[in-house]
Amino acid sequence: MTSVSSLFAPVEEDLQILTENLKKLVGNRHPILYAAAEHLFTAGGKRVRPAIVLLVSRATMPGGDLTPRHRRLAEITELIHTASLVHDDVVDESEIRRGVPTVHSRFGNRIAILAGDFLFAQSSWYLANLDSLEVVKLLSEVIMDMAQGEIQQGLSQFDTSLSIEAYLDKSYYKTASLIANSAKAAAVLSDLKPSMTENLYNYGRNLGLAFQIVDDIFDFTGSTEALGKPAGSDLQSGKLTAPVLYALEEKPYLETLIENQFTSEGELEQAIALIQESQGIERAQELAKHHAQLAVKCLADLPPSPSLQALIKMADYVLRRLY
Amino acid sequence: MTSVSSLFAPVEEDLQILTENLKKLVGNRHPILYAAAEHLFTAGGKRVRPAIVLLVSRATMPGGDLTPRHRRLAEITELIHTASLVHDDVVDESEIRRGVPTVHSRFGNRIAILAGDFLFAQSSWYLANLDSLEVVKLLSEVIMDMAQGEIQQGLSQFDTSLSIEAYLDKSYYKTASLIANSAKAAAVLSDLKPSMTENLYNYGRNLGLAFQIVDDIFDFTGSTEALGKPAGSDLQSGKLTAPVLYALEEKPYLETLIENQFTSEGELEQAIALIQESQGIERAQELAKHHAQLAVKCLADLPPSPSLQALIKMADYVLRRLY
Repeated sequence: MTSVSSLFAPVEEDLQILTENLKKLVGNRHPILYAAAEHLFTAGGKRVRPAIVLLVSRATMPGGDLTPRHRRLAEITELIHTASLVHDDVVDESEIRRGVPTVHSRFGNRIAILAGDFLFAQSSWYLANLDSLEVVKLLSEVIMDMAQGEIQQGLSQFDTSLSIEAYLDKSYYKTASLIANSAKAAAVLSDLKPSMTENLYNYGRNLGLAFQIVDDIFDFTGSTEALGKPAGSDLQSGKLTAPVLYALEEKPYLETLIENQFTSEGELEQAIALIQESQGIERAQELAKHHAQLAVKCLADLPPSPSLQALIKMADYVLRRLY
Repeated sequence: MTSVSSLFAPVEEDLQILTENLKKLVGNRHPILYAAAEHLFTAGGKRVRPAIVLLVSRATMPGGDLTPRHRRLAEITELIHTASLVHDDVVDESEIRRGVPTVHSRFGNRIAILAGDFLFAQSSWYLANLDSLEVVKLLSEVIMDMAQGEIQQGLSQFDTSLSIEAYLDKSYYKTASLIANSAKAAAVLSDLKPSMTENLYNYGRNLGLAFQIVDDIFDFTGSTEALGKPAGSDLQSGKLTAPVLYALEEKPYLETLIENQFTSEGELEQAIALIQESQGIERAQELAKHHAQLAVKCLADLPPSPSLQALIKMADYVLRRLY
């Protein structure tokens, strides 16, 4: 069984350089941000997003060589992702992420909001200094998408009329947009022609959707230990994901439970049981598989390389986490 | 006596177009943001920042004509300013701004953080679509400066060892950077040569500093009614501004009161009285005057126009608010 870190083998050294650089970039202007940066960039993040950028970069450059601009793009991707996590944790009042206290629980709301703003601002600034208007446009679209996705998610809490299409849109905005647009941006920095950069966008888009769907399935199949939070947490907070939306088609009583927002004892457990009895989880697995397969197809035109192999295996890996 | 709106006469129509456009831009993607946008862009903001951009644009373009890019830049400037206000109000837990409830008190913390993120994201996106890397760099520097200024302000609360230089640095980051860099960006869009764009940067920098110093003086000379908050509010929250820093040189007991953070009854009133007895307010007025005069000198090379006259009068106006 492949582990995520062995998948990243072609860019493992690059990821170590990236982590050190991120601490320096963020800590540079402020002692207080230095503490936050140490905290943020040491706390066992899997670095999936910058790894994809680095792998796409090596898979699209002649000889597999990285330029400093590719490295900077990978750093910007992780800065944007981290900024969004810091604000999400304030908004969701989360106390723990990746097994360690969140910035807002450790440093307070004030510092968490400002640190998130600073990370977003810094990513815009480094982005501008990549000197490619196309890349600036791709990544600023992402920042806007992420804010929109978070707002849509907030608005659709406990809304049982949510469609699978609206769920996928929201998942694109919240998760897949960053992976899709940063994969495309890496290809743009490698000077690939537009049809090829579009393929990499679609690779990232489908991989990101598969990722999100699999994560959403875990809310019903994972253990509290593996998830770092109790099973059914997403459902409890009103996030209606693929397994729930499919289960709603079979189990009308689920609608009543959700609209009641699990206010009575045992209602959450009852809802989880209904979802587990239904075809919801299986259908969501099929949906994830569909997107993972589409992702792999988008790589067809790339020349063979260890990085290409790793990108293909990423899609397998996402699905293998399911079983 | 000149009012601020008569100063803006050469761009009054432009400002009306801007307000309508901002509501459309922000409300476009979301009904909930539409409500926030209506709230934000109707609530009697003075539109000083976009007015300066529009005046610089008209003063630097042949025939005084605005391009759509100049208008968009003015809108971006107001978006960035508004985003920072929304987050500042969450961080400072302010309930009222410009006489109306803040976004966070009306819609809650969650929507306020997300709306601020969305406004920042949108400004980055519109910025990228101005198709000038130089302008993107200037304005992303601003967003980073504003986050840094807010953090520095947080760190230096009640710190009586703060120097006037550090106070001016912080005022540049929080206030003057946006005015300076957006004035320069307007000149860049008008294709002025670098020495001229630099003059407009310095106009904005000095005008912004004068503005901030005058605002800080009002904390000690304004009425609760005019300020929309009780006199001495900044001091009470630990913001040590020019009048306080100068007064500290004369009144050693002020240091004790500040370091005690006004925890005992009457200490805040005592501190305000010490500042009013000192030369602090007068010296701060001199400092504001110095920067306003520097600002006017930076306009020496511009051709005569109603917009140039308005830019010159802006500096007078800032000082006239003092007396």
